[in-house]
Amino acid sequence: MNAILKGRLVGVGTGPGDPELLTLKAARALAEANVVAYFAKRGNNSNARAIVEARFRQDMVELPLLYPVTTEIDKDHDDYRAQITDFYEQSAEQVAEHLAAGKMVAVLSEGDPLFYGSYMHLHVRLAHRFPTEVIPGITAMSGCWSQTGVPIVQGDDVLTVLPGTMSEFELSRRLADTDAAVIMKVGRNLPKIRRALEATGKLSKAVYVERGTMPGSVSMRLAEKPDDKAPYFAIVLVAGWSTRPGAPGAKP
Amino acid sequence: MNAILKGRLVGVGTGPGDPELLTLKAARALAEANVVAYFAKRGNNSNARAIVEARFRQDMVELPLLYPVTTEIDKDHDDYRAQITDFYEQSAEQVAEHLAAGKMVAVLSEGDPLFYGSYMHLHVRLAHRFPTEVIPGITAMSGCWSQTGVPIVQGDDVLTVLPGTMSEFELSRRLADTDAAVIMKVGRNLPKIRRALEATGKLSKAVYVERGTMPGSVSMRLAEKPDDKAPYFAIVLVAGWSTRPGAPGAKP
Ligand SMILES: C[S@@+](CC[C@H](N)C(=O)[O-])C[C@H]1O[C@@H](n2cnc3c(N)ncnc32)[C@H](O)[C@@H]1O
Ligand SMILES: C[S@@+](CC[C@H](N)C(=O)[O-])C[C@H]1O[C@@H](n2cnc3c(N)ncnc32)[C@H](O)[C@@H]1O
Repeated sequence: MNAILKGRLVGVGTGPGDPELLTLKAARALAEANVVAYFAKRGNNSNARAIVEARFRQDMVELPLLYPVTTEIDKDHDDYRAQITDFYEQSAEQVAEHLAAGKMVAVLSEGDPLFYGSYMHLHVRLAHRFPTEVIPGITAMSGCWSQTGVPIVQGDDVLTVLPGTMSEFELSRRLADTDAAVIMKVGRNLPKIRRALEATGKLSKAVYVERGTMPGSVSMRLAEKPDDKAPYFAIVLVAGWSTRPGAPGAKP
Repeated sequence: MNAILKGRLVGVGTGPGDPELLTLKAARALAEANVVAYFAKRGNNSNARAIVEARFRQDMVELPLLYPVTTEIDKDHDDYRAQITDFYEQSAEQVAEHLAAGKMVAVLSEGDPLFYGSYMHLHVRLAHRFPTEVIPGITAMSGCWSQTGVPIVQGDDVLTVLPGTMSEFELSRRLADTDAAVIMKVGRNLPKIRRALEATGKLSKAVYVERGTMPGSVSMRLAEKPDDKAPYFAIVLVAGWSTRPGAPGAKP
């Protein structure tokens, strides 16, 4: 009987914002799940939840996993690490209770669950204990380069994905040494990102996308953006592919 | 009348193989398109076509774009470049005829259209002439890390996407200087890829995935793969995220 009761953990990628960018498989998982869990900041709406909210069913249990308030603590401090680790442990145990009771738990993740997503903190704690499946999602970067029609890489191009949180030197060094780049976590890192792009001669190629595929999305060449204000949901794209055979304007 | 007649070009990402990894938006585009186009090698089935074939309608026009036979010619040779450029030009004109006739043309692209996809050769030639939309797809890498449950990047990790066609030195140099890596276009480059991973101490972390999300998919730790045979549809993943706060086994 135990085997039949055993629950199932499913990491569900919701895509970057447009509810139609959900996969058929994710839609099916949401139609079947008993419990739907997601990480959120206290008082903030979860973006992943908003993307799929229209699919929530009356008989579905909602399990918000609310981050502890840690803004007062330095992220490099041991107290922060201990608190956040505790939080992930407790969250995993909350999910495990439902799994142990034989439920199917869908954990929502904006974009793709295993690509800079917090779902993986549950995954690494539970996947060896319960049947687990990860349903990939359209990443924010795919959503953003598709919306703006930027052919990001072709042929032998190298793509580097950089978190905007890196130091200006590291950003510059890596931007100088790649064909194409995606810079995530823009927000208040934009002035630094702009300087690194300028220093490496790539500012003129950079495209800025805010809230890609969401209502009210804004995009423009970064060089033409008049200010350095950027929300959390913003990305910078630098396309490769300029010297490939078959590319218009390719070097002969 | 002209405005009403104007066609629409839609680049449709089909995802990496599993037909359920299509987005709702892509499914709708295929339900609406008048013409469905795709690149293919003569005598070979198109993988993108196979993924969505079940959605083809009787009243849909199929437009296969067949690559010229160029195996005898060196890829760096000007003749190759000229032939392949001609081919893309002609393909774009074939598609343009349907667009000019007011048709909606869906161009299939395995994975995501603008991520190493041939769709972009049509995009750059047609997007300024006709209303165009790109529908992102689940990339092969997302499909592969989800299937194998590899948490690829977290926190401040850098991800580098490398084509296996690069030189061994370049592969090694870039593998040594990144947190996480994805190596595409594995095929007969596997012996070289293995040496580059070994040289940079990353072979033990590398995961090999063949035909990810497709029937008969195979995956294993690359170090445990007994031979160096790999098909075109194979990828190598090296996860970052080992020293992050909250990661089990993270350095304190
Ligand atoms: C923690 S990461 C999550 C990434 C997500 N799991 C994915 O697959 O893309 C958050 C970052 O993703 C980017 N992002 C997420 N959604 C976005 C959107 N709709 N438009 C632009 N950037 C977005 C931003 O750079 C943001 O800081
Ligand atoms: C020309 S690229 C196309 C990439 C595709 N547009 C995407 O978004 O992932 C072809 C390469 O993608 C990888 N690939 C595509 N489908 C795959 C699959 N189902 N499993 C493993 N690798 C795959 C292989 O490395 C292959 O050589």
